[in-house]
Amino acid sequence: MSNDPPFRRIAIVGVGLIGGSITLAAKRKWPSIDVAGIEAGDDLSGIAGAGLIVLSAPVLANIRILEQIPAHAAPDAIVTDTGSTKRRIVAAAAASPALTFIGGHPMAGGARGGAAHARDDVFDGRPWILTPQPGHAAAAVARLESFVAGLGAVPHVMTPELHDRLVGAVSHLPQLTASALMHAVGRLAGDAGLEIAGSGLADTTRLAASPPDIWKDVAVTNEDVLRDALDVLIKTLADLRDTLQTGEAIEAVFTSACRWRAALEGARGAKATP
Amino acid sequence: MSNDPPFRRIAIVGVGLIGGSITLAAKRKWPSIDVAGIEAGDDLSGIAGAGLIVLSAPVLANIRILEQIPAHAAPDAIVTDTGSTKRRIVAAAAASPALTFIGGHPMAGGARGGAAHARDDVFDGRPWILTPQPGHAAAAVARLESFVAGLGAVPHVMTPELHDRLVGAVSHLPQLTASALMHAVGRLAGDAGLEIAGSGLADTTRLAASPPDIWKDVAVTNEDVLRDALDVLIKTLADLRDTLQTGEAIEAVFTSACRWRAALEGARGAKATP
Repeated sequence: MSNDPPFRRIAIVGVGLIGGSITLAAKRKWPSIDVAGIEAGDDLSGIAGAGLIVLSAPVLANIRILEQIPAHAAPDAIVTDTGSTKRRIVAAAAASPALTFIGGHPMAGGARGGAAHARDDVFDGRPWILTPQPGHAAAAVARLESFVAGLGAVPHVMTPELHDRLVGAVSHLPQLTASALMHAVGRLAGDAGLEIAGSGLADTTRLAASPPDIWKDVAVTNEDVLRDALDVLIKTLADLRDTLQTGEAIEAVFTSACRWRAALEGARGAKATP
Repeated sequence: MSNDPPFRRIAIVGVGLIGGSITLAAKRKWPSIDVAGIEAGDDLSGIAGAGLIVLSAPVLANIRILEQIPAHAAPDAIVTDTGSTKRRIVAAAAASPALTFIGGHPMAGGARGGAAHARDDVFDGRPWILTPQPGHAAAAVARLESFVAGLGAVPHVMTPELHDRLVGAVSHLPQLTASALMHAVGRLAGDAGLEIAGSGLADTTRLAASPPDIWKDVAVTNEDVLRDALDVLIKTLADLRDTLQTGEAIEAVFTSACRWRAALEGARGAKATP
């Protein structure tokens, strides 16, 4: 089996946890690959020779950078991103028909961002969603799929709309919930409460170490989905609150949650055994 | 240092995860200790010779069993429990002045209950809250403290009222939230969403594997605290929902959550280094 990289030279704009990990994972798989890392605010002349350009800044910054890509990139370059929402950036890319933009989102990372936490195995076995536009050449999509598979990830192709709805539920809503819960627990219990907390609180609020900035971009670009998702969660919590004496909602919600939790463990277990 | 157990014989009523783990941890520390394990619905004659009686069934079952204790226990026996709320059972015990009841709550365990998951190290370094009544002889409290310290736990003495308020925030609220979130995510995203979920969802919903039964008892016996706690959380989530475009609540809530999360890690880190 050949180990030629699908792109001889790639450029990564925005070198945080994800951008840094792409560099490390690409070098692990293809030691000869040439990777240009460019800070999000820097001059883009370094992308000139790249066959693949990866935008790895926060969502709104990626959209601003995208507008400057045609002036610097090779005409046949494929452009992708790693942002957490896809409808907005795909729509922005559609305004530049000369650009071959394929939205991307690796479902990997961690609460701690920054290049210092980058690792070459962050993507191993993890889904990497790609959202090509209808007019795209299948060959470009196949090349990008082979690139992300080389990083260790499992490519999933879907529409930007489906991505934003599913990821809004399985990633954005848990993030907002973990931060809201940690805030509420801190206000209610203070340091004396944290002193006696068990591992349940620590697990449930692990995501609460995420800083606000990238999540503001996510909220703005997935507002409709998140409004609906928060409504469903708030309604569920209000039902629990209103039937604490009878346990009616506890019975229904916990039974449903146990079933979905088992399904989640099944889905993750299946992935752990390739 | 002597290794005589503070009680030569103990009886544990309700042999699930916590009751089973108490047995294992006690035998680890004091191989000579005599432990009688009694199922929650069984005849209580086995408690007769015990110096310590531990009620480890769900909260309301413990309260029912408590009423039958004076008929079977030695007059000088100390009675404790391991339930997740303390005001209700302490009030019930106060109705039997002959009983030396000291409420207890080990802040340990896991989402998976049952004796099959019992381990001898479940309590190591974990807080074990004791809620003595004002009239208690200090000697009885000291003996129970030395027992739970022998199991590996760190005794914390507080009132039943403070216990229920703090634990409502750091344990009961996260449990209700994790189950509500898993239910909402399942409804919103279905199996297709779980298929692409990252580890954030798995961590945030680990507690959602808890079955409804013991949590109905917790809700009934800590209703006022949980109603207030759920109100604070619902208000926080509603603020997030109503300012998705401006990011105003994201800025405030995430900043607060980051600070409390760091405090939680500090508290847990301090405990990990005895």
